[in-house]
Amino acid sequence: MAKKQENFSEWYNDIIEKADLIDKRYPIKGMDVWRPYGLSVMHAIDDLIREGMRRTGHQEVEFPLLIPQSEFNKEADQIKGFGGEVYWVTKGGENDLDIPLVVRPTSETAMYPMFSLWVRSHKDLPLKIFQIVSVFRYETKQTRSFLRVRQIHFFEAHTAHADYEDAERQIHEDLELTAALCERLCLPYALHKRPDWDKFPGAHYTVAADAMLPELKTLQIGTHHHYKDNFAKPYDIKYEAPTGGHVYAHQTTYGISERILGAVVAVHGDDKGLMLPPAVAPHQAVIVPILFKGKEAGVVDGANALAQRLRAAGWRVHVDARDETAGFKFNDWEMRGVPVRIELGPRDLEKQVCVMVRRDNGEKRTVPLAEAERALGESLDQYARGLLQRATDTLTQNVRDVKTAAEAKGATGIARVGWCGAEACGLDIQAVTEKTLLGVPIDVAFPTGAVAALAAHGSPALQGKGYHGVCASCGKATTTPVHVAKTY
Amino acid sequence: MAKKQENFSEWYNDIIEKADLIDKRYPIKGMDVWRPYGLSVMHAIDDLIREGMRRTGHQEVEFPLLIPQSEFNKEADQIKGFGGEVYWVTKGGENDLDIPLVVRPTSETAMYPMFSLWVRSHKDLPLKIFQIVSVFRYETKQTRSFLRVRQIHFFEAHTAHADYEDAERQIHEDLELTAALCERLCLPYALHKRPDWDKFPGAHYTVAADAMLPELKTLQIGTHHHYKDNFAKPYDIKYEAPTGGHVYAHQTTYGISERILGAVVAVHGDDKGLMLPPAVAPHQAVIVPILFKGKEAGVVDGANALAQRLRAAGWRVHVDARDETAGFKFNDWEMRGVPVRIELGPRDLEKQVCVMVRRDNGEKRTVPLAEAERALGESLDQYARGLLQRATDTLTQNVRDVKTAAEAKGATGIARVGWCGAEACGLDIQAVTEKTLLGVPIDVAFPTGAVAALAAHGSPALQGKGYHGVCASCGKATTTPVHVAKTY
Repeated sequence: MAKKQENFSEWYNDIIEKADLIDKRYPIKGMDVWRPYGLSVMHAIDDLIREGMRRTGHQEVEFPLLIPQSEFNKEADQIKGFGGEVYWVTKGGENDLDIPLVVRPTSETAMYPMFSLWVRSHKDLPLKIFQIVSVFRYETKQTRSFLRVRQIHFFEAHTAHADYEDAERQIHEDLELTAALCERLCLPYALHKRPDWDKFPGAHYTVAADAMLPELKTLQIGTHHHYKDNFAKPYDIKYEAPTGGHVYAHQTTYGISERILGAVVAVHGDDKGLMLPPAVAPHQAVIVPILFKGKEAGVVDGANALAQRLRAAGWRVHVDARDETAGFKFNDWEMRGVPVRIELGPRDLEKQVCVMVRRDNGEKRTVPLAEAERALGESLDQYARGLLQRATDTLTQNVRDVKTAAEAKGATGIARVGWCGAEACGLDIQAVTEKTLLGVPIDVAFPTGAVAALAAHGSPALQGKGYHGVCASCGKATTTPVHVAKTY
Repeated sequence: MAKKQENFSEWYNDIIEKADLIDKRYPIKGMDVWRPYGLSVMHAIDDLIREGMRRTGHQEVEFPLLIPQSEFNKEADQIKGFGGEVYWVTKGGENDLDIPLVVRPTSETAMYPMFSLWVRSHKDLPLKIFQIVSVFRYETKQTRSFLRVRQIHFFEAHTAHADYEDAERQIHEDLELTAALCERLCLPYALHKRPDWDKFPGAHYTVAADAMLPELKTLQIGTHHHYKDNFAKPYDIKYEAPTGGHVYAHQTTYGISERILGAVVAVHGDDKGLMLPPAVAPHQAVIVPILFKGKEAGVVDGANALAQRLRAAGWRVHVDARDETAGFKFNDWEMRGVPVRIELGPRDLEKQVCVMVRRDNGEKRTVPLAEAERALGESLDQYARGLLQRATDTLTQNVRDVKTAAEAKGATGIARVGWCGAEACGLDIQAVTEKTLLGVPIDVAFPTGAVAALAAHGSPALQGKGYHGVCASCGKATTTPVHVAKTY
């Protein structure tokens, strides 16, 4: 297998197949087969998202995959933004369809004709729904599993509100959910208000969460869009106000794709394989019975009894009783990123202890069996903190202040420069740096506790407040910094 | 709302929208929007299926939606069977695709190129996987929600085995899973080995489960296919046998679609609305606090306390504290098919009792609050038995022995006639009766207990053994009966 530090790209392509997440050999490029292990991790991420949706009163729906061209064409920016990269169904059986159907690239144009029927009175608002489905892009660039694919596992929440401010509150709620999710994934990120030319097609504004990958390029892992009434007008989503009269609704969307799994793989993994955050690891611990010829008696039974106790305590625990060497099993589970390995041999059993080994740093602890539940909890907690700390260090240590676009071009990671806010200057900065202007970094006041661990949010380098500088293009004095980086 | 007995079709179309299962107003006919309540029931059915899959060592995967025409065309019967009713993606953005892509109507032709890579040695067998996805048919007949749609919520298990017999054992395992699932859904059915002309395209044989709907037409709710090596040959799925040499694998599939939800709606519902089986009801009980002006004190609190206790006992319980009349709430939850309603008023609270009302027969029981957990369990159990018994009666009372095709034509429900087994005679019986030959009824020995409640399996009318008659077409003596019915 390639080394992560030497050739990230090759390492990434190797690990996702060796860890049995997906199979890339499907006969359409950019459409991968989800293997059981990979799908299980993705479903665990879905479940964390569902948990957040339930907590905030969103309801799960499922809309059809196909969208009539006539509906798709109602919002001009959507066509401009997606028209060139959608798949078209033009035939049913031997017949040409009267109206070609778009294979959804995202679901605004599928959902909003129904929103128009569902929203009647102010009592119907806010309307908060979500779905977890596949969306499709006719990707012409080089594809890469999870990061740039043609069939995308996708979560999308769509809401409608009485006014601009209520939609704004929704964006804030979504940002809290992103923070809570990323905390469970041990995944720090920076939030950016995207420049106007890079916002979602049809959006009033877009706030994106960007993670830092090992090549020090950023990856967009979540988006939050305020639509104002930009879609409500073409799709006629109006409600009767309490004071009479019909008013257009304001809308938001919130999206997270399988890219976030790509970030988990890329950020946490090492040359031995994956490192899965405990919240989404199919097995949080694997017990490997250590067998010597003639001395096995009771060891596998002991492992099963231990597993049962740990499961009763709420952990996902697997016993690997395969007829393979311990070394083979160690390597296998390290590759699959199991957070904690538990070794149990005949002598351990005699002494009523087991050995817990953390996947991230290889640290071994001998633990009395009687304390196994508590000890596993501790190990998982320390492991998760370890993942988050390392990833946070990588992010915060790679945001640097520079004065000019030329310096930003040479800087690795995220470069912070001044920007006067003019589109021409922003595009000029992009051209000179040959990088992407991620946008203005924003910091949001999150409830204490929920994301206390997300130290990245506390890093001054990731916040916009108190900045004083000059625009890297026109030289005008400005208090607005922007982040510039290479992106996926 | 239309009456079920007077106009089943209209009743069915009304109830699925009034009970908030789906919204039919999506701008493509035959593609419905899953509303939160309906999706929740469908997901509960999915979860029962997943439970069965886990128990039998199947692993969940997800294959891409699109299939290159070149792969789709490898198995001749599939093209013949599905070619006329698939959607084709022919364009990406502005470009015509080099190879048109089929939107999967089912996933054999997507999966088996990968099976060819995954199956190498006899140690890789049996290979047992499944997925729960949407499949698509370009349906030209009249569509009807759940029963005949263009986007179909679909479970499909695919397996590969060392030989014919092992694949046969798999079919048996699948039949047990169907029995266990249908027991949870209170849904009796008859099993039929489909005649050759009606088996799945490419299959060696097909065994289908057929439910009886109120119009006394049957609905196929599950299929079990033995493929022999019919797909292994074109897709080159071979393994190295222990004795050396390469051998083609034998395969099976097992499928259940959203039609099974259609059967649940149609079989159990009445003029007041749905009746959901407890296993898949989003709320197994709803507590309605009975409020009188000025006497509310403590009633809502009491309802919440009761709900908490019932939830702790493992039941899904909802408290309806909306600002609506009790009558409105009763009607609403009856429409949504909640199995048990619990009424709690101020006098009940004084006496420390509540009233449990069964959705199926309206039976009321006054129950001491201290015994609520046990009492709810009893009510749900009796309710489920009630649903199953009524449905079983409908099925078994509507299978009748007749001697001639002309009699079979006039008979309602399922008619049993003799058949010599010749295709010409079978097609003749179909032509004369203007009905479908469902196939030879089969009975399978299920483990005791698993399906003891499925009394339908014990009904002689649903079994083939011991039959003596003559072919309804040619008059030859035969010991093989076939079932003939109108179908959806």
